[in-house]
This record gives sequence, C-alpha cells and structure tokens, in this order.
Amino acid sequence: MQEIIRDLLIPNDSKIVLCVLDGLGGLPLDGKTELEAASTPNLDELARRGACGLHIPVARGITPGSGPSHLALFGYDPLKYEIGRGVLEALGLGIELSPSEVAIRGNFATAKYEGRKPIVVDRRGGRIPTEENKRIAERIRERIQSIDGVRVSITSGMEHRFVLVLTFPEPLPPGADDITDTDPQKEGKAPLKPTPRRKEAQMVAHIAERFIELAAGVIKDEKVANYLLLRGFSLYPNLPQFSQAYGLKAATTAAYPMYRGVAKLVGMEVLEVEDTSIKSEIETLRRHFKEFDFFYFHVKKTDSYGEDGNFWGKVKVIEEFDSFVPEILKLNPDVLVVTGDHSTPAVLKSHSWHPVPFLLYSSYTRGGGSLGFSEKECLKGELGIFKATDAMTLMLSHARRLQKFGA
Amino acid sequence: MQEIIRDLLIPNDSKIVLCVLDGLGGLPLDGKTELEAASTPNLDELARRGACGLHIPVARGITPGSGPSHLALFGYDPLKYEIGRGVLEALGLGIELSPSEVAIRGNFATAKYEGRKPIVVDRRGGRIPTEENKRIAERIRERIQSIDGVRVSITSGMEHRFVLVLTFPEPLPPGADDITDTDPQKEGKAPLKPTPRRKEAQMVAHIAERFIELAAGVIKDEKVANYLLLRGFSLYPNLPQFSQAYGLKAATTAAYPMYRGVAKLVGMEVLEVEDTSIKSEIETLRRHFKEFDFFYFHVKKTDSYGEDGNFWGKVKVIEEFDSFVPEILKLNPDVLVVTGDHSTPAVLKSHSWHPVPFLLYSSYTRGGGSLGFSEKECLKGELGIFKATDAMTLMLSHARRLQKFGA
Repeated sequence: MQEIIRDLLIPNDSKIVLCVLDGLGGLPLDGKTELEAASTPNLDELARRGACGLHIPVARGITPGSGPSHLALFGYDPLKYEIGRGVLEALGLGIELSPSEVAIRGNFATAKYEGRKPIVVDRRGGRIPTEENKRIAERIRERIQSIDGVRVSITSGMEHRFVLVLTFPEPLPPGADDITDTDPQKEGKAPLKPTPRRKEAQMVAHIAERFIELAAGVIKDEKVANYLLLRGFSLYPNLPQFSQAYGLKAATTAAYPMYRGVAKLVGMEVLEVEDTSIKSEIETLRRHFKEFDFFYFHVKKTDSYGEDGNFWGKVKVIEEFDSFVPEILKLNPDVLVVTGDHSTPAVLKSHSWHPVPFLLYSSYTRGGGSLGFSEKECLKGELGIFKATDAMTLMLSHARRLQKFGA
Repeated sequence: MQEIIRDLLIPNDSKIVLCVLDGLGGLPLDGKTELEAASTPNLDELARRGACGLHIPVARGITPGSGPSHLALFGYDPLKYEIGRGVLEALGLGIELSPSEVAIRGNFATAKYEGRKPIVVDRRGGRIPTEENKRIAERIRERIQSIDGVRVSITSGMEHRFVLVLTFPEPLPPGADDITDTDPQKEGKAPLKPTPRRKEAQMVAHIAERFIELAAGVIKDEKVANYLLLRGFSLYPNLPQFSQAYGLKAATTAAYPMYRGVAKLVGMEVLEVEDTSIKSEIETLRRHFKEFDFFYFHVKKTDSYGEDGNFWGKVKVIEEFDSFVPEILKLNPDVLVVTGDHSTPAVLKSHSWHPVPFLLYSSYTRGGGSLGFSEKECLKGELGIFKATDAMTLMLSHARRLQKFGA
C-alpha cells in the first residue's frame, strides 16, 4: 500500500494531528471499560460528528508490543518491518542510532566458574539496584572503548539491564544482526556463544564475543553481577521516511524516549517538550503548529496505569486528555485522530489483543453512527473494524492529500 | 479467489441482476446524504428484507477511478488487473479493441518551432472546439493509414483530446505498452520522445515516434493545433472472461460507451439500448432476460450529478431508479444487487474514498438489520464492510451457484 500511496500523493497545506493514548483500549470492570467509565464530553462530541471504528494493530488475537503497534499506526506493516528489541531498548534509553550501529540488550548476571568455564547461576544478576548497575557499567566503560576499530558503548538501564551499542566504521549490511542470544535461558548452564546465523553477521558476532570475554574479565571480581549476557542483536531498521512515504513534514510532541525514538526512525522531527505532562505536549503542539503537516501526539500514562492494573488511574488520564481536546481543536487541524496504539486493559495488567477505539474528525465524514467515544460506540461507526496499517491512508484521504487511483 | 471460485462453480438457471448506480455513495449536506435525502420506498423495502453492507472498492482511504472500481465489483483485484488510461479513453469513445492493439491518449497542442525543433507553448492546443478537432484528425487520417505495416487510426474526443490506436499484425507481448509519455508537462519545453522502458516496448515506441513526426508534418500549417502529444500507452488488458471465471452468460444494459467497453473486456454481451435513460435499460433488460444468467445494469447520472456538485440532481436520479425497482422485481431475478462502483459525494464534486452502500436481495439472506437503504443503515446490515472483490462471490453463492469448499 505504501507504494500505491506514494504515487497518489498530492501536496496541500492541510494539518493532521494523530493523538495516541497509549494502551487506550480496555476491558470492563463492573460492566464498563476505562473509556466508558471516563467522562469525556469533548471526545463524545467528536465521535458523534466524526467517523469512528476500531483498529487491529497486527492481526486478530495478536497482542502487539509498542514497536509493532506504532509502526502499524504509522502505516508500516509490522509483519514486514521490525524494530529489533535491542534498538527498541536503546531508543527507550534515549540513545540515538545510525545505520552503522548494532544495538544489543544485555543483562548483568551471576556466574560461577568451573575452571575457566563460566556457569550462569543467576541470569538477572540478583536484580542489582540501578545504581550498582551504573557503577559496574562505568568500570567496563573505563577499560573497553573499542575492539578491532569498532566503538563499544554500554549504557545502563533499570536494575540488571543495559544496552550495548557497537559502532562500525561503515553502515552494516542487512542480516548483520542475525546472531543468536547468549542467554542459556536456564540457570546452571554455561552461557552460549553469540553465533552468526549467516555470513553477513560474522563480523558483529566476533566483536560481541570479544566484548563478553573482555568485559567478563573486568567485572570478574564483582560479588553478584560478575558476568553478562547478550540478546536481541538488532540493526537500525531502514524504514521509509514520512517525507517520502507520505509527503508529510512530520513532528512529534511525545515526551518519553522510546516514542521519540520510534518517531525519529520514521523521519519525524522530535520536538522539545518541557516535561511529560499532556499540558506540555499541547504547548509544544501549539508552538510548532505552523511548521509541520503532521503531528504525532503521545500520552503514555494510559498504558502505564493499565499495566499497573490501576483502572481508575487510567480513567483519570483519559479524562485529563479529554479536557485538552478543545485546545487542539482551536488550532483547527484538518484531520484529528484520537486512538491508541494497542489495548492495555487494567484488568489484565498488560497489553492485549483487543481492537483499539479510533476516532477521526474532519469535514469529510458521514457521521451520526456513534453516540460517544467508547469501544462499543466505535463498533457502530462508519470505519468499521480495520487494520491499523490503513490508518495513515484514511488520514491522508480525509486531508485530501491523495488523488484518484486509476482513471 | 477467482481460482477458488472456478473450482466450486455449479451450473443452474438462476438469474443475477447487478445494478450499479455510478458514484452512489455520498456525504451529508445539512445532515443527510443523497441516498438519505432521496425517497426510495422500494429500495428501503428490499433493504429491510435483504442483506445490506458497504463495499470498499480498492482499499480504505483510496479513491478509485471508474476502471478499477468496476473491475473490483466484477471480482478482479484492481491492484492486480489494470485497464490502462488509453484503453479506458478508447472504450469511452466506443472503440473496440483487440489484443493486437495499443491505445494511446492524445492531445492536440500548440508548438512553435526553433529551427526544426518544436517547443510546446500550449499543451492543450487552445482547447479547440470538438469540430475543429474532427477536421484536423480527418487531415491526419487522410494522409496516414499505416506505418511499417502497423495500422494507425486516430479518433477525435472532446475539445483537444483524441485516441490513437495502433493495430499490429499479431497480439502484443505483455509490457509492449511500457512507454513514457511525450507530454513535457510544462509549457515552453520541447516534447519528449516516446521512450520504451523495456525491450518488449521498442516496437510500439518506434511506430509512435514515426507517427508523431508524420502527423506533426501534416498539421504544421494549423494556426492553433499544430502539434500533438501522446500519453497513457496501454495494451488490451487480458482479463479472465465471465463465462470461464464464473460460468455466467453475462450481458450489460449499460448505455454509455466506457461502461459498455469495460463490460466487453470481461466478456459480457453488450446489448442494444434505445437511449441512455433508465427506462431504456429496463426495456432492454426485459427483452433479453431469458437469454442470459447475469445482467450488469448501469446508471450513469448519479455520478455525473455528483461530479457537478448537484446534490438534488443526484437525489432525483436515485428516486427515478427506485421507481423502476418493481419492474426489475417483476422479472423475478434470483439475486438482485443494488450498489455503486464508488462514492461521488456532491459536496466533494468528485469521486471519493468512502465505502459504498450495497444491497443484496435473494431468498437466502437473514435480513432484519437495516431499516432502509442508506449509508448508515447499510452499516447495520448483515454483510458488514467488505472488499468489492467479494461482491461476485456473494452474488454467486446467493444464486446457489457455488458448491462446498473442501469436504
């Protein structure tokens, strides 16, 4: 579809605002979902006048991670394009990546040695405090900066987690990250070697192997986190950029690193926001509204509360967003979409596979189907149930940015 | 799907009538779409008793041209099969084509000469009156009948437009029409050469180039339309025929050349109609009802009024069609479908991407979902939102012409 769309693009000066309330979709608690329990007079009004539906991020019954679900909403088939786990983790830590880099997820672990052979006794290195992680990472950083001309950089995450980035002198070929994890998955086993699954990956696997040897040597004297495991080797994903794919000058007001990172991967400008509040995003949106065609607005806390099982916390964030809707409307966007990237029902305390409410407001909808903004009312809407990858096409067409297909 | 269907076909003597109200789908003006504003007691009754839904001609958010949207309704994936622009234009002028022919769209243009080199100063040759066009085309026709054994035939369209058909001695290979347009797209530039994009197209490009030289020589002394540009080179599309694909002896009552042409491409018999009125089509349908299994009935003016922005004109055509529904029912078809090929909302004055109302009446529907025939009521219908390419399968099954898939 992206190829077809590219041929149909016509430029105009319309503005599109895509608001993603992370994990928006829910499940009922005492008969009402989070969205149904929330008082959302502004969204309800838009739902009555605009077009509603529900989107399926990846496929029916499939629970998506944040990477695939965002790719899908941005029009990239998540079964074709993938943001590797290492890259996603790096983005979450605010690390900027380039096509010459491989990002790898790491765990500090506890090993005992049988002679020179390590045996993993705790794959998560006692879940050491983040501060401890930082101290140990610094020890490695002091001693290892590069291996065979490849720059090596370790960044601490939470508890025992870290990200390792290998920077090569040149962009890496596809498949250079096709390397097995070193985590043996069970305690009491020897760690595995990072093994290339194809020729293109030999070079990266070799550097990774050397790094493990050297770094394990550096931290051998640590009491708990004296070893390290690597997994999720991944290359910078080569995604068509928004400007080329859709002819859109796009920007994001997202505040959290991972979402800023994903936006950057598709070629969006990452705008400065004062803090992670909805209010700050609104201010950033207002400040830059003239400069861009497309805005990706992101509310994180709907998902966080969902993951925590905090039903009423999630309800409150939805209500808070609703109160800012008039501010967005004042900017007079040609197309305003409010949706989620996936569902995160508080009763499940996790992402889920349930279709995600979707509301599109523009001058060119039929309207009148939905009585408000909720999972049930969206089901009555004119957009029906559709694949998330169609969302961009819908936004572009309602912004009158697509010409006729065929004569 | 077409392959699967072919294996499931069972012959019977059922009759299917597919009525396409061109551009049927609409958008609200003062709260009601054209279909909602129209008084359609007969269609409403069928909608209540039959099965309703909405079809998507090409893909969500994609606005289809008439070629792709008709192919889709006839069960041909418009992303796979294509009717080239030259062929569509030729069909619109009532030209019959064969697999040995290439059809090309042409413009008479105005050129000034810098030495022997033409420079296009008006790409649309002053939009000369159609009569002028005919006179100039006749001049060319008198002088050029064939080039290197290839028959050359020029047919005037409206204003500055014409269609050029090249008839080769033998059917042409796929890709023989893969040739660049000669229109430089901007005034003040030299026309481009027709350039083959692959080997199979060299022959056609060569003839086209010679034709331009010769024809430009013939009309060089014209004051306004003294040059010509070619674009949209296209081969006769090789579409599976209705008889083989569906086991249907099919015919059309369509009155307008382009739709008669498209029907012919898929192997339908093109029936004589007295004029372009709905009444004439009904008479033709009645006269030939015993002879065929499948009828494609086509109402053009819903689309024409939509394109003109004439909301109430479109409403009236819908009402006129509704008044003829009892006449069709008297013939007792086993399956009657009323739908559009795409939407043409009068408020947009153009084709649009909005899903198209679809009504299927037969003895084997569940019924009871829709209260009448409109976009909103179709959304409640038992067929849901579906791809237009599924329409033929639905008609065949309701006509009991498909056996079980698998044991």
